[in-house]
Amino acid sequence: MGRMTKTIRGGAPCSIARTVDVLKDPWSFMVLREALDGVTRFADFRAGLGIASDILTERLTALVEAGVLTREQYQEPGSRARHSYHLTAAGTELAVVIGALQQWGDEHLPWQAGPTIERRSARTGRPLHVAFVDDRGREVPLEQVSFRRTASYPAR
Amino acid sequence: MGRMTKTIRGGAPCSIARTVDVLKDPWSFMVLREALDGVTRFADFRAGLGIASDILTERLTALVEAGVLTREQYQEPGSRARHSYHLTAAGTELAVVIGALQQWGDEHLPWQAGPTIERRSARTGRPLHVAFVDDRGREVPLEQVSFRRTASYPAR
Repeated sequence: MGRMTKTIRGGAPCSIARTVDVLKDPWSFMVLREALDGVTRFADFRAGLGIASDILTERLTALVEAGVLTREQYQEPGSRARHSYHLTAAGTELAVVIGALQQWGDEHLPWQAGPTIERRSARTGRPLHVAFVDDRGREVPLEQVSFRRTASYPAR
Repeated sequence: MGRMTKTIRGGAPCSIARTVDVLKDPWSFMVLREALDGVTRFADFRAGLGIASDILTERLTALVEAGVLTREQYQEPGSRARHSYHLTAAGTELAVVIGALQQWGDEHLPWQAGPTIERRSARTGRPLHVAFVDDRGREVPLEQVSFRRTASYPAR
């Protein structure tokens, strides 16, 4: 993983840095959690998170610019036009990141009443977790996982 | 996932919030990346990240307090005692989070020269990715993943 000063800004060789640059602050993770839970409307994000309107606007706009959410307009009878926010395919794939953060917190920083969310297969009902998987779709234990530098890895 | 104002601080019902609270800022992810790459010494973290000493000290201390790293003392002949930092078992499990961030960045925010790191099985050499897996160790496609609220989920 890239050893260099240019790790945080966009265009960094390190893909962790580029992803974290999109998510940027803790509120982004919470906005994403709500979006994955089906929330689309500004007022519902605000009520769910107890977040100031200007911070929420800034975070939603950044996630739209990053290609995680799309902004759409909707209008209810007798009301003015409003915006709603919907996950893109790329945004939906962040469920893997969210699931990994969630299971780590439940395992290593447990809450008194236990996990508030569980992950299950909608098809089989079996419990799910996030893990490393090989190209045959089989789980590989963490002690067998190797991170290797490619030819693109920057020289020091 | 938890709809409430108390999402960011420790003790929140939401395990995503609790984990993000440990990682807190982008530097934590970069420190963790270096630790997973085998870095243990303060000077090596500093050289690898191009980060100010006081920020690095603050981040390392926070990760020690959170149980992600342990601090040990070492002394080389003719030098004063220094600290080194080592991943705990809990810290090592954050590789799943790091791998998920990495693959998302490589997929959706590709760098010009391609991925700098690849993940492979140390046993079989097969390429690895991070995904949802059921209790039989079989990958489950994202469209079949269901996040469900448990009885511990807080009432609004």
